[in-house]
Amino acid sequence: MKPDKISEAVVRRLPVYLRYLNELSLSDVQTVSSQDLGDKLNLNPAQIRKDLAYFGEFGRKGVGYNVAYLIEKILQILKLDQTLGVALVGAGNLGRALCNYNMYTKDNMKIVAVFDADVNKTGGRISHLTVQPMDDLKETVDRLGITIGIITVPAMEAQKVADRFAAAGIKGILNFAPAVLKVPAGVRIHYADFTAELLSLAYYMDYEKRMEEGKVDE
Amino acid sequence: MKPDKISEAVVRRLPVYLRYLNELSLSDVQTVSSQDLGDKLNLNPAQIRKDLAYFGEFGRKGVGYNVAYLIEKILQILKLDQTLGVALVGAGNLGRALCNYNMYTKDNMKIVAVFDADVNKTGGRISHLTVQPMDDLKETVDRLGITIGIITVPAMEAQKVADRFAAAGIKGILNFAPAVLKVPAGVRIHYADFTAELLSLAYYMDYEKRMEEGKVDE
Repeated sequence: MKPDKISEAVVRRLPVYLRYLNELSLSDVQTVSSQDLGDKLNLNPAQIRKDLAYFGEFGRKGVGYNVAYLIEKILQILKLDQTLGVALVGAGNLGRALCNYNMYTKDNMKIVAVFDADVNKTGGRISHLTVQPMDDLKETVDRLGITIGIITVPAMEAQKVADRFAAAGIKGILNFAPAVLKVPAGVRIHYADFTAELLSLAYYMDYEKRMEEGKVDE
Repeated sequence: MKPDKISEAVVRRLPVYLRYLNELSLSDVQTVSSQDLGDKLNLNPAQIRKDLAYFGEFGRKGVGYNVAYLIEKILQILKLDQTLGVALVGAGNLGRALCNYNMYTKDNMKIVAVFDADVNKTGGRISHLTVQPMDDLKETVDRLGITIGIITVPAMEAQKVADRFAAAGIKGILNFAPAVLKVPAGVRIHYADFTAELLSLAYYMDYEKRMEEGKVDE
């Protein structure tokens, strides 16, 4: 296994497989074929076999993949075979939604601390967590061994939060604020940007309409 | 201009340009160079020039792009030079966050109606909108000429909502529920999937750590 060589596209498909495999596991389904996976996930079964073969020989012809074993392997590959603590900054509606959201990884990744700069929000509760002031960030990150941070503050506050995360020793950031952020080397930042998905919809809707009207040249 | 030939990658970068151009416009900046755009957006200036040249000759050497004109052109290309009404189903925390969220397109795309199946939520207010029962969906979509739907319900309810949207004449759907949905031909569906972004973080954090430790073969 050479995880260093896994392409970004594959790494991003693995969580998609994982989600469906967890669904199957909850329904007590023991095995699954690449055809089933492909049908359910709108992916090419050959692509799925190729992705999974990357990590060794999992599947058995005519039987398919063992669901439990595949889940275990994917968690291992994604380095989720450990519990990773997550800190979230920004206790607004989006922050609340994420705290209440089922992460679909059972206990592998969990929001364990919530922070907000607004004194009107600190002390309040979100599910089982108490919103802490920003001054507690570093101490809490150290104490709980948190390595991942989520940013759900307004765009103009986001860089400040990223800086605080990096200073506190956070190694991975998921940013929901619509702003491009700078982080030091050694810190990985991913963007959860649904505005782009929403805005590109109009283009494709128009395209599909023209397809139906026969106005698009192939 | 042959919009049918624009690649998916370009279509998804245009909203990113648009967001920053709108920021510039608000700060009364009149022109911008591809270098500035590249620095701010972490993109290659040559890539940006190539993307924008696709739609005709916008830029002027040594002067850069006219911000207002570029905004107008991109809106036109994305078919956002019209106001598109959006209906949202699922008035939970995420739905609320999206309703309160600045769409960064001024009035081009706007949530104009909110629905929920829960009678405890209908009649309640989210910013200036009243949460409506699902039975009102078709009539409201017709009356307001809504073409886009956003799904922010739990995964197991999402397919039902997609079916209702399609039956009501919705042509584009942005799905936030962690579920793969089937839609009829002529309806475009996009996924806002932050779980994949979050889960792939752990992999890249481990990779960066190994890079620092010199354990990764290039």
